[in-house]
Amino acid sequence: MSGYQEAADYIAAQIGDGQLKPGEQLISERQLSETVKVSRQTLRAALLKLEADGLIYGVSRRGWFVSPPRFVYDLERRANYKAMAEAQGRRPEIRLLESGRVRLREVPTAARDRLGSSVCRLRRVRFLDGRAVMSETIYLAAEVLPGVLGRNLADSVTALLKDGYGIDIDREETQVRSTLLDATQAAALGVAPATHCLSIERARYSGEALIEFDVECWLPGAIEIRLTSTA
Amino acid sequence: MSGYQEAADYIAAQIGDGQLKPGEQLISERQLSETVKVSRQTLRAALLKLEADGLIYGVSRRGWFVSPPRFVYDLERRANYKAMAEAQGRRPEIRLLESGRVRLREVPTAARDRLGSSVCRLRRVRFLDGRAVMSETIYLAAEVLPGVLGRNLADSVTALLKDGYGIDIDREETQVRSTLLDATQAAALGVAPATHCLSIERARYSGEALIEFDVECWLPGAIEIRLTSTA
Repeated sequence: MSGYQEAADYIAAQIGDGQLKPGEQLISERQLSETVKVSRQTLRAALLKLEADGLIYGVSRRGWFVSPPRFVYDLERRANYKAMAEAQGRRPEIRLLESGRVRLREVPTAARDRLGSSVCRLRRVRFLDGRAVMSETIYLAAEVLPGVLGRNLADSVTALLKDGYGIDIDREETQVRSTLLDATQAAALGVAPATHCLSIERARYSGEALIEFDVECWLPGAIEIRLTSTA
Repeated sequence: MSGYQEAADYIAAQIGDGQLKPGEQLISERQLSETVKVSRQTLRAALLKLEADGLIYGVSRRGWFVSPPRFVYDLERRANYKAMAEAQGRRPEIRLLESGRVRLREVPTAARDRLGSSVCRLRRVRFLDGRAVMSETIYLAAEVLPGVLGRNLADSVTALLKDGYGIDIDREETQVRSTLLDATQAAALGVAPATHCLSIERARYSGEALIEFDVECWLPGAIEIRLTSTA
C-alpha cells in the first residue's frame, strides 16, 4: 500500500466488517506493518489517524484496541451521565480524585467573580467500560451549599444539588472547544501530556445565581456531541 | 523557566496584557527561547500548546502570529456565517474550490441514502481576516434543486435554498467531534496533513426531506461553539 490513508482505510474496513470487535486487541505493530505492507512509520501514522477518528485507542506498553462507539452526548437532553451511558449499553463510573476549598485566583476567570467568595473544587475522572475517557474539574458556589464537601461527590452533581439543597439548575451556558490536556488532566487519563481533547465548559445557573462551573476534557475519540434544532 | 507550561503561561500573559496584539508576529523561536530561558524543544512544546489553545497560530516558513479571538459559533442562532462574523468584527470570505455531481458511493454513509439519486458536492474554504480557518464539503439533494451548479455557490447556501428554490430549512441535526483533517482538507487550509480539527456535521431538513449534508472542519484554535439551554 502507498500511504497512511490507505493503511488506515484497510484497518478501518476490518473494524467496519466486524472482523475486529470492540475491546479486541490489534496484532502487534510489527505484524500489522507486514500484513498491510507499509513501513512502521506509515503504519504508525495510520494508527494515530484511526485513534483520532475514535476507531481504536492505544494503551501504553500494551498495544492498540478496537474502540467501542463514541459516547453520544446529547446537549439538549441533559440527562445524568450514568443514565445516558447505560442507555447506550456502556458501563459508566465516576471516580473522585480530590475535593476541597480553593482560593479565588485558582478559579477560571470565566467563573471567578460569579461563584461567591467561597468556592469548592472537585477533580474527577469518568470511565466508560473501565477506560478513563474524561477528566473534569467542577467549581461550586460553596456559600449556598453548606457542608458540601462531606457529601457523596462521586455521583451526579445535579442530583446532589436538587436532593441535598433543593436547587434546580434551570439554565446552562455551554462552550465547546478543541484544546490540549494540561499535565494534571493528562496524568488523570493516563495519556501523554499535551494530548488533544474536546473541552466542554458549562456554567450552570439557578435563576440568576451561578451555582456550578464545570470543565470537562474528553479524549477526542471517545465522544460525539449531538444537537437537534428546529426553526 | 522549568517546563513548557511555564513558558506558555509567560507568553500567554504577554498576549493577555495586550503587549502583543492580534495579527502581530512573535519574535523568532531562537530569540524567544533566549528571552523565556528555555530550550528550543521546550519552547516549541509551549508554542504548540498556545496554538491548540487558540492564542497563536503558525504560518509555515514565516513564524508565529497572535490569533484574533476564536470565532464564536452559536448553535442556536443559526445565522448566516458572514453576518455572524461581521457582528464579531471579523472579515469573512467564502471561496468555492470545486462543485459538481458525485457518485452516491462518494457521499458519506450518514447521508448516502437520504439525499435522493442525484447529489451535488461543493468544496469550499472559509476565511476570517484573510486566514483560512475552515474547510467544508457540502452535499446537496440535486433533484429538488434544478440548475443549482449554475448558481452562485460562494455565498450562503441557506439563502440560496430560500431565495432560489423557496426551500426553508426547518430542522437541523448537528454532530460535533474532534478528529483529523484528511490530506485534501489539510491542503485546502494550508496546514500539515493529519492536523487535528473540530468537525461539525449538519444534516439539514425541510419537513422530512434531507436537503443538505454539510461537513465543516475547523482549525481547532479558530472556533468556539456556544449554546445556552434552559430547563
